[in-house]
Amino acid sequence: MPYVAPVKDMLFVMNELAGLSEVVTYPQYVEAGADLDLAPAILEEAAKFTQDVVAPLNWPGDQHPSVLRDGQVYTSPGFKEAFSQFASAGWQGVVHPSKFGGQGLPKLISTACFEMVNSANMSFALCPMLTDGAIEALLTAASPDIQERYVPKMISGEWTGTMNLTEPQAGSDLSMVRTRAAPQDDGTYKILGTKIYITYGDHDMAKNIVHLVLARLPDAPEGIKGISLFVAPKFMVSADGSLGKKNDIECVSLEHKLGIKASPTAVLQFGDHGGAVAYLVGEENRGLEYMFVMMNAARFSVGMQGVAVAERAYQKAVQYAKDRVQSRDLSGSPAPVAIIHQPDVKRMLMTMRGYTESARALAYYAAAAFDAQHAAPDEVVRKQNQAIYEFLVPIVKGYSTEMSIDVASLGIQVHGGMGFIEETGAAQHYRDARILTIYEGTTAIQANDLVGRKTVRDGGATAKIFCDKIMQTEKALAESDSADALAVLKQLTMARHAFEDSVTYIVSHAKTEIKEVYAGSFAYLRLCGLLFGAWQMARALLSAQALRAGDPPFFDAKIATARFFAENLLPQTQALAISILEGGQSTNALAPEQF
Amino acid sequence: MPYVAPVKDMLFVMNELAGLSEVVTYPQYVEAGADLDLAPAILEEAAKFTQDVVAPLNWPGDQHPSVLRDGQVYTSPGFKEAFSQFASAGWQGVVHPSKFGGQGLPKLISTACFEMVNSANMSFALCPMLTDGAIEALLTAASPDIQERYVPKMISGEWTGTMNLTEPQAGSDLSMVRTRAAPQDDGTYKILGTKIYITYGDHDMAKNIVHLVLARLPDAPEGIKGISLFVAPKFMVSADGSLGKKNDIECVSLEHKLGIKASPTAVLQFGDHGGAVAYLVGEENRGLEYMFVMMNAARFSVGMQGVAVAERAYQKAVQYAKDRVQSRDLSGSPAPVAIIHQPDVKRMLMTMRGYTESARALAYYAAAAFDAQHAAPDEVVRKQNQAIYEFLVPIVKGYSTEMSIDVASLGIQVHGGMGFIEETGAAQHYRDARILTIYEGTTAIQANDLVGRKTVRDGGATAKIFCDKIMQTEKALAESDSADALAVLKQLTMARHAFEDSVTYIVSHAKTEIKEVYAGSFAYLRLCGLLFGAWQMARALLSAQALRAGDPPFFDAKIATARFFAENLLPQTQALAISILEGGQSTNALAPEQF
Repeated sequence: MPYVAPVKDMLFVMNELAGLSEVVTYPQYVEAGADLDLAPAILEEAAKFTQDVVAPLNWPGDQHPSVLRDGQVYTSPGFKEAFSQFASAGWQGVVHPSKFGGQGLPKLISTACFEMVNSANMSFALCPMLTDGAIEALLTAASPDIQERYVPKMISGEWTGTMNLTEPQAGSDLSMVRTRAAPQDDGTYKILGTKIYITYGDHDMAKNIVHLVLARLPDAPEGIKGISLFVAPKFMVSADGSLGKKNDIECVSLEHKLGIKASPTAVLQFGDHGGAVAYLVGEENRGLEYMFVMMNAARFSVGMQGVAVAERAYQKAVQYAKDRVQSRDLSGSPAPVAIIHQPDVKRMLMTMRGYTESARALAYYAAAAFDAQHAAPDEVVRKQNQAIYEFLVPIVKGYSTEMSIDVASLGIQVHGGMGFIEETGAAQHYRDARILTIYEGTTAIQANDLVGRKTVRDGGATAKIFCDKIMQTEKALAESDSADALAVLKQLTMARHAFEDSVTYIVSHAKTEIKEVYAGSFAYLRLCGLLFGAWQMARALLSAQALRAGDPPFFDAKIATARFFAENLLPQTQALAISILEGGQSTNALAPEQF
Repeated sequence: MPYVAPVKDMLFVMNELAGLSEVVTYPQYVEAGADLDLAPAILEEAAKFTQDVVAPLNWPGDQHPSVLRDGQVYTSPGFKEAFSQFASAGWQGVVHPSKFGGQGLPKLISTACFEMVNSANMSFALCPMLTDGAIEALLTAASPDIQERYVPKMISGEWTGTMNLTEPQAGSDLSMVRTRAAPQDDGTYKILGTKIYITYGDHDMAKNIVHLVLARLPDAPEGIKGISLFVAPKFMVSADGSLGKKNDIECVSLEHKLGIKASPTAVLQFGDHGGAVAYLVGEENRGLEYMFVMMNAARFSVGMQGVAVAERAYQKAVQYAKDRVQSRDLSGSPAPVAIIHQPDVKRMLMTMRGYTESARALAYYAAAAFDAQHAAPDEVVRKQNQAIYEFLVPIVKGYSTEMSIDVASLGIQVHGGMGFIEETGAAQHYRDARILTIYEGTTAIQANDLVGRKTVRDGGATAKIFCDKIMQTEKALAESDSADALAVLKQLTMARHAFEDSVTYIVSHAKTEIKEVYAGSFAYLRLCGLLFGAWQMARALLSAQALRAGDPPFFDAKIATARFFAENLLPQTQALAISILEGGQSTNALAPEQF
């Protein structure tokens, strides 16, 4: 089924909820040529490219995954050509600095483009996503020499990047990394070790691959404080930028995965023939810190992948529900009607829609906070937005990805028996989405981060900022005084109370009842996602009421979706708060041997 | 990973919650030799067979699905031999009448056996499950001649059965069935039409296949009142029971499915060469009624498949969580510990366990009601249990299958990145489980049945019976006065109130606001599943408190699981009630063209 980029909703969110008009006034974006007209122009271009070129490769890619032959990975049909178009159109460089060939535009704009390419084809989109992360890490920590050698070719899409973190014994816990880096007399290092789950660890879509690798120097401290970051290219790069011989990095196998089958997930062997030549990025033993820069960007991106796959699954389900004629209308009809008239089908479609729109709104809001953090002229604004963005990253990652699995599953359900047949395509989204709560930090990792670093560390101060903002929206809802606004207000207020109670409990018990508190971390993350999503939908309702005359069908749908979300999804927060406040003890009650 | 049948929990549920001691006193079961010692003996046998013979074929079957070659389906490696053992050990006949060679035992006992074979291998278990349904339908409606010709061979497992309902244009809505049956002069019929999604529609595990087929006679009324039921064998059966020539039934293709890949899902073409010879079952135009007998049995069975796949996914996740050593204990540990010590991993495992145990308890309770309905000497008891069983069928089907998808998904999550790799095996459960909410009536069909036929039709009278029973349990919890019992009591009472409010709303608005009421049907089904599951867990807690001294680790775990369920899963009922009472209007607000 074709993909149609939801440009109208994206622009509505950017303009009305995320504050694009403010973002484009920040000096560095003005300099880059950003203005209010640029966003629609770029989004239309991105829509065209992703709809026409990238989306048609999604299902064939699932059926013809990447393959490894004689040490070289060959990607799915059409991927190489599509990536070459992606690169030459400049899509890899949208947010990156113009000094290295990028466009230097706001994350808010690039986020919409990123959503589209992921809706079109998640497997394809993973390659530029990993490259983005590698560019970030090099820009953060690498020497000017390394930056100049690698970054421009990555931004141009001639080369791509990877992140090499995981090892068989070191998944979520990177303190257990064992890969070694041996210093050489010429200032380079030789890397020896095995890395697993390396997305696009090898492929044929670019001339070179820039591997960022976590490894330990000799005599490095134990644990996470002894990990350094290195860059190791697939092909050696001479001073003039030309490519030399192949480095000692071997793709020894590809994983046989549940989903995202077109994207090669490699096991990479570093140094089977003496050691892979690598260069230290930044300072010794600070690798994890640099990697976190990359990982934080990647976490936000994975959250957006959740929105993207949910959007695609939703579009497909809507189309089927409109086309499939079966059973009479509940209130009576002379003949069978399209199933979209059935209340339970509407319930499923509204649930998919509500989750997707709320998660998009929240993520774009976060992207604007990122832009403000980095580009707002006022330092106070920058600081406050940093706190906001950092609080939101685990929520965008955790909430959007968890809901994407539910949405993709509902997508199958709407199709009935057809949904279970692979050729229908709904099942691919269900399989693809399933990785999102795992990679770049599982939901548990996000939830722990949200509880520990984001809520407890500042004693709930940032959480309080969100409460204040939500209360402002409640005030506006009360003043607007429409039946829809008041219905949303009722549920939003209850949910905000649930959040306040949870924050109070967490902050006051985190030291004394650590296991009980962390047993509720998932529930807390989900509560935050629902509340903040509903808050954005409430803001959307207020804007839609004001703008309604300009496009009644669109704005009425937005209002109805906001109310649906408040009445049918947001109330989960009541249950989650009970679980957070009362459920920790029973969660931890069983000893391992009792399971 | 090996499967270990949870015989201890099964027997606990049968004895303490489902009333096995009562069931085995019913005359027909006494006659069949049932007593309290029989259940453990049969369960141990079933455990041995399913663990050793059936379970090892599960993953290979997924990797080597059934194939169609030259019009004949060949099943996955080992299936044929395993089914032959299944048949010769008499497993097909556990509940069926002894007069046709069965054992005539209670459904309560056969349900446990059925769970095991499904945990071991859902694809394999589908074949006997469909045969069970076909036997039921023949016993309900077929002439003695047809019964004698087909049923004994089906009970012995020499032949198997199928259900031919769905057609490309007729899925959930069987009124649209178009397959025709042309009467012949000799009293037989010729069937012409295409049936899809026919589970084990062809295979090589038995000598013959007995197809039950819905079709229309000439001049039959439109819609569901014009559908008749026929039996059409793969190979013609002579009067002496010997097999003759092949009938005009062709397997023209097998579906390429997301899961249960080893089970062949056939497209059957009836009558490409003049018509498939068939015999009318029962009276003309009453086919759907007979099929419902079969379908009701099958709905309960599919609910049990949900319990079964959840149990298997749970066992696998527990094993991984015990084996995988990574990260330190939250409260401090000198070295990394097994991840089962992490609160969020416990949260996932307890959720899986809580859903599985509650759904098992509720289903076994329903099975005992079925036995009472059919075999209790007192007619009042039979009547009341019929109402109870019929109320519970859509809940067992809907709740157990919906939760099984969540449980299988959590099973992947516990495995982290490994869960996404097919060879790990966790992904198979996620794929297999996904059919369960679709076949034998989607969750929406179950939810509509629960609202319309089961709740509104008697004005909430049966729902009230459950309230009274739950209140009795609440009383016992209050009297027991342990901290665990009181914690469960608090949540159970709140949830029962949510149920009462929902029933009141549904019964009083079903006529006037039909679309609003049915928009909440899914939420109502889920609310019932959670409440009734929690009620069974509360009863389990009370038994466990009384029996504790006999096996403290087991009973303490039961108590803790009951409390976990009440505090962490049951509170969802609060959110569901809001959705039922307030969310119907916004669910229906969008017109089709606004999606």
